[in-house]
Amino acid sequence: MGNKRLFELDEWKITTQTLDKKQRRLQESLTSIGNGYMGMRGNFEERYSGDHHQGSYLAGVWYPDKTRVGWWKNGYPDYFGKVINSMNFIQLDLFIDGEPVDLYTDTIREFEMELDMQTGILSRRYIVEKNEKQVQVEVERFVSIAQKELCAIRMNVTSLNEAVDIRFVPGLDSNVTNEDSNYEEKFWLPVMAVKDTLMVETKPNDFGIEQFTVAATMLNRTVGVEKICDTVSDMRVNEEFAGKLAVGEQASIEKLVILTTSRDSSKEEVGTRSQALSVDLIPFSFAELRKQHAELWKERWAKADVVIGGDSAAQQGIRYNLFQLFSTYYGEDERLNIGPKGFTGEKYGGATYWDTEAYAVPLYLALADQKVAKNLLTYRHNQLPQAEHNARQQGLKGALYPMVTFTGVECHNEWEITFEEIHRNGAMAYAIYNYTNYTGDESYLVDKGLDVLVGISRFWADRIHYNQGKDQYMMHGVTGPNEYENNVNNNWYTNTMAIWTLNYTLAALEKAPNKKDALTVTEAELNEWKAIIAKMYYPYDAEKGVFIQHDTFMDKDLRPVTELAPSDLPLSQNWSWDKILRSPFIKQADVLQGIYFFKEEFTKEEKQRNFDFYEPMTVHESSLSPSIHAILAADLHRMDKAVELYGRSARLDLDNYNNDTQDGLHITSMTGSWLTIVEGFAGMRTANETLAFAPLLPTNWTHYEFHINYRGRLLKINVSQTATTIELVTGEPLEMKVYEEVISLKDQYTCATTTATAVAVVK
Amino acid sequence: MGNKRLFELDEWKITTQTLDKKQRRLQESLTSIGNGYMGMRGNFEERYSGDHHQGSYLAGVWYPDKTRVGWWKNGYPDYFGKVINSMNFIQLDLFIDGEPVDLYTDTIREFEMELDMQTGILSRRYIVEKNEKQVQVEVERFVSIAQKELCAIRMNVTSLNEAVDIRFVPGLDSNVTNEDSNYEEKFWLPVMAVKDTLMVETKPNDFGIEQFTVAATMLNRTVGVEKICDTVSDMRVNEEFAGKLAVGEQASIEKLVILTTSRDSSKEEVGTRSQALSVDLIPFSFAELRKQHAELWKERWAKADVVIGGDSAAQQGIRYNLFQLFSTYYGEDERLNIGPKGFTGEKYGGATYWDTEAYAVPLYLALADQKVAKNLLTYRHNQLPQAEHNARQQGLKGALYPMVTFTGVECHNEWEITFEEIHRNGAMAYAIYNYTNYTGDESYLVDKGLDVLVGISRFWADRIHYNQGKDQYMMHGVTGPNEYENNVNNNWYTNTMAIWTLNYTLAALEKAPNKKDALTVTEAELNEWKAIIAKMYYPYDAEKGVFIQHDTFMDKDLRPVTELAPSDLPLSQNWSWDKILRSPFIKQADVLQGIYFFKEEFTKEEKQRNFDFYEPMTVHESSLSPSIHAILAADLHRMDKAVELYGRSARLDLDNYNNDTQDGLHITSMTGSWLTIVEGFAGMRTANETLAFAPLLPTNWTHYEFHINYRGRLLKINVSQTATTIELVTGEPLEMKVYEEVISLKDQYTCATTTATAVAVVK
Repeated sequence: MGNKRLFELDEWKITTQTLDKKQRRLQESLTSIGNGYMGMRGNFEERYSGDHHQGSYLAGVWYPDKTRVGWWKNGYPDYFGKVINSMNFIQLDLFIDGEPVDLYTDTIREFEMELDMQTGILSRRYIVEKNEKQVQVEVERFVSIAQKELCAIRMNVTSLNEAVDIRFVPGLDSNVTNEDSNYEEKFWLPVMAVKDTLMVETKPNDFGIEQFTVAATMLNRTVGVEKICDTVSDMRVNEEFAGKLAVGEQASIEKLVILTTSRDSSKEEVGTRSQALSVDLIPFSFAELRKQHAELWKERWAKADVVIGGDSAAQQGIRYNLFQLFSTYYGEDERLNIGPKGFTGEKYGGATYWDTEAYAVPLYLALADQKVAKNLLTYRHNQLPQAEHNARQQGLKGALYPMVTFTGVECHNEWEITFEEIHRNGAMAYAIYNYTNYTGDESYLVDKGLDVLVGISRFWADRIHYNQGKDQYMMHGVTGPNEYENNVNNNWYTNTMAIWTLNYTLAALEKAPNKKDALTVTEAELNEWKAIIAKMYYPYDAEKGVFIQHDTFMDKDLRPVTELAPSDLPLSQNWSWDKILRSPFIKQADVLQGIYFFKEEFTKEEKQRNFDFYEPMTVHESSLSPSIHAILAADLHRMDKAVELYGRSARLDLDNYNNDTQDGLHITSMTGSWLTIVEGFAGMRTANETLAFAPLLPTNWTHYEFHINYRGRLLKINVSQTATTIELVTGEPLEMKVYEEVISLKDQYTCATTTATAVAVVK
Repeated sequence: MGNKRLFELDEWKITTQTLDKKQRRLQESLTSIGNGYMGMRGNFEERYSGDHHQGSYLAGVWYPDKTRVGWWKNGYPDYFGKVINSMNFIQLDLFIDGEPVDLYTDTIREFEMELDMQTGILSRRYIVEKNEKQVQVEVERFVSIAQKELCAIRMNVTSLNEAVDIRFVPGLDSNVTNEDSNYEEKFWLPVMAVKDTLMVETKPNDFGIEQFTVAATMLNRTVGVEKICDTVSDMRVNEEFAGKLAVGEQASIEKLVILTTSRDSSKEEVGTRSQALSVDLIPFSFAELRKQHAELWKERWAKADVVIGGDSAAQQGIRYNLFQLFSTYYGEDERLNIGPKGFTGEKYGGATYWDTEAYAVPLYLALADQKVAKNLLTYRHNQLPQAEHNARQQGLKGALYPMVTFTGVECHNEWEITFEEIHRNGAMAYAIYNYTNYTGDESYLVDKGLDVLVGISRFWADRIHYNQGKDQYMMHGVTGPNEYENNVNNNWYTNTMAIWTLNYTLAALEKAPNKKDALTVTEAELNEWKAIIAKMYYPYDAEKGVFIQHDTFMDKDLRPVTELAPSDLPLSQNWSWDKILRSPFIKQADVLQGIYFFKEEFTKEEKQRNFDFYEPMTVHESSLSPSIHAILAADLHRMDKAVELYGRSARLDLDNYNNDTQDGLHITSMTGSWLTIVEGFAGMRTANETLAFAPLLPTNWTHYEFHINYRGRLLKINVSQTATTIELVTGEPLEMKVYEEVISLKDQYTCATTTATAVAVVK
């Protein structure tokens, strides 16, 4: 278990009976909800004057925050793109006898909070005591997946021991800031404010980035209180409702908020559209809206749920990850991508990282419609001109996909990341292969994928240089996935991804020869790529039989993590950056990331030697780390290691392993636990367009079960101690492999589950 | 010649007849004056509404400007210390018939501007025409080296063709900002303002840095005008004087300003002190004050002047550099050091860099009293606790002297500099050796130097690691003097400086064994240092016979600068940082810096091979680069190269070689031209406590002559085509070497000057 487990173990719920004022930010992160279009941290509707982080976010609404570094150099990005705190639209102040309820300062009893992952509803109940009067408050909230613009809140208030005056003050408030803004500036300007609607726009900027207009309209329906007034100012509107409650009486309010943005209509129509959509809600009760929403969540689960028997922590972990992933992105809008914090925080900025291609595409391929993964790929194709711009900024040819972006233009501001962590370009290419290989659909590759592949290949060819002394090609000045080093030479992973890209592009061009002309690929260019492929240098230690992370890695003071004191960990919080950079300790899979991508290319002995060399030096301080290692460990039948790392991946946020979940959830790494179960424990492989499984069962689990989509079919895989069953739920029969056996799956196939020890490789 | 030569060639003066509105910033930089205590850019006293940079600075008065980087990591400094724009105290507005004179918008004729380096006086004359009335204006300004707190200005105004009303408005104005402040904030708060005095203080800060109080009092004396009023506000005071001038009549004003700071008295006394010092000026006329000042400048020149025959550009260059160096620092205040821009601009921040130890100490050793160099060393000894703090910040033992600082605490904010460009620590140790070896005074070494040496040695021992695989010690993750690379391993220069420090410290401890106890140096520690010395790794290319800049330098695409297009240069302005970092092109001496420091340790062939390998890849884009290469070129009798590089060093600012002098002068690199003449052309060496010369004469020079102080003696060296003469001006006879001959210098020694070709080594 990590640093802090705030919520109880429950297979479908995140619950607590504690209002943890010291860990309020962590509670808020963990109770975030979203619907792909918008979302917010688990803030209270009522006041909370203690330390917390108020944050609501709208997908694709952002601001380019000017970058100021100590010493400007050519090629630095001008701004850091920030997901911006949009507006506090959940606000619903409650007054008792004229005094506001403040959950930080008031006496609160019988506090209960619950996030129901099966239905996507966040609810709370508590008793507040003010001047010896006890009042029960119940709140429910959801952001609808049936109507993306809708956030619905219901609050019920019951007087328990004495008559009270109560007042509800629902509001919309754009006096919000980003915690991480560079100059403490506010990003919003007023446009219009009337009693139920607030419209604002983002500030002008110097970078040619569009200004976003956002409107919110609230529809407040009450029982037991009467409207008394409206309060309207530039950046804030409120309605007020008041009434008297006798003992045992209840008053309630339903606050339905519609949020519209200039992403979906002209600026002029944003406000009228939010009002019109709000009017459309009038016929529907809160209960009806909630039911529509909950039913759709149940449909999602029917396709994607993973059942784990015998380990409720593991069960809760995988469901939590899928819930938060789907809350962030469910593929409805091809202009969007998967932000690293989703709607749960502000750190990291940007709308997408290479995480999408490396970690999320495989999951969406298996759990969602094929067009979702295709949308993710198309997103990058649409940004190809910007990727070419990024390469030009560095004086290089071809396309360099950004580390962090909204538009495709790089907007991160550390040189060691911006133009050195270029392995990301390889992940863009790999995702095209992954999609094509998994789906069998070559049309994307030919229509669009090749444009991207040729752009990336041109970048690699220009970025690689020829070393006359050694008669080999090399790549200097890169940062590998292990960001605990940077500016290294011949990072094995980056070199491997680059040459793989050149090979794959050459092969793909053979399939679509007319693309050569369209993309002005000359024979000379192809020959240059072939020359690079033929003479590329890969650092290798012949004595140890391992690929070397980069040129001088072996010269370090090589030590395992076990030699560190517990007080050293996490290194990111306890060591200076200097010590971290020079140490042998690895943040996340680097050589092993390459072995993960190309598992079939390496012998078991090669995988084992590299795993045994690198994993002991790995501190797993990136959320992306444990899952890749868990999958490789399972591949090597190191089930104890695999299960240990599964726990760190599946419960990274729930158990706050990296001690930073208070800043928001690690959304993009949430795919890791699913990948571990499916690619790790169940051994799913898809290389050479052949689906294969080789399941193992963690010893503390009684069984596990999951579904996957594969080329128009729905399969259900159940792995128990006695048997592995693969059921063809829908679709045509399929030739596939289970363990080493080729089978023809018609309705159902069952065989004995292999135990890890039976085939474990001797170390 | 560089990019732009704005001023005429003159052996003692910087003159122009052009008011260059497009290059006003460059003019301002070049006409800066200072007296070690304060100084300012060559701003006009009158208004100038065009683009320019108003800047006046007080030594040691600074502000810690909060650092914001993209991603904070442990060990980063909290703030960047900035020399702050102090107050506009030269302001003296002139009104003609009620309209202000503005040199940007008004019609200006017969403009003349002159900086007299012999006397340290900046003067101007012009005719302004307003409404067809012509008025002649003459202005003189100096910051007194006879009284450090005094800045004196005189303005004479003469009506030429019609009667005019004129008005003088001398003022003090603290509404000033720094161009490079991170958040565009103002650093000053008001304290007190009365008719002749303005007192302000720096804003509070979060870093525990003292707030500085500054007061200015002006004493305005006029002829031909009458006082009409005072204007006083929080941050600005003005006096106004008005009168009528008939044709041919002249009015004049003398503005004497006294500046005092809380560095020299309690905060309470700063204002009364400036007023009292101002009263003390009453008996003295402007002419008298000017004479005191000019006489002292002449005394400085008598000791330090360098005469060059036959090359007025070279002559002007060396005098300009000495003038600006002495204007910045003349050793009066041991709390001060030599800032990179002196009083001429704001860029770079900080009060001191390693430039002081590497480039300035040798010059001050030879040209100023011995205590000046000792003061520079003591400055670092005083900051030893802060250097230990810097090391602790990185989790390391011993002392790490800062790259940029005011207090000793590191305040630069790029990790690749802050804790990687640690070779600076070696320069601190080398300066101790240099002082001791040059002066023969071992007392500093024993009393204070060893504290510093042991601290630095402890740092090196902890920073170096043992590589088990190779059974050698290494140093990873450093930035060498060549800042066009960073985060490299086994930088030959840094490794060399580190091991030299350990050796020198061991030897010095032998001389002062009682220091071992005082500094708790154990035998185990000494043995560890010896083990490191014995097994240190230095990258070396046996085939080429050159020291390798760092581990993977030879793997680069090695090319000479001559293969670049002119449009590529300077790289810093035309290439992305990515391309620069990966390129073989070198910003400034790196391996060659080490060879420069330890010239006697290498054979002529070694020096030649390394020079021929590295210099062709060197772009000399650091102002510190040309001189070191010129000295080595002269050492190798490559006089053409030496003379070419001398020009770049001596006239770097006058000819704006690096196209950035508009931001301020390159003060610390101004020692370079002197070093080139003395250590390069004249071949001065002092190793093993033996003074030696081996003069050569650049072919286009008829002769050159300079003085040096050496162990209580004053020597005059004159080198002409026919003879080299060394005269013992004052002091005891001296055993020394001229060329390879050991001589005993009594009054004068003369021999033939060797010509370079006679002993040139065949390439």
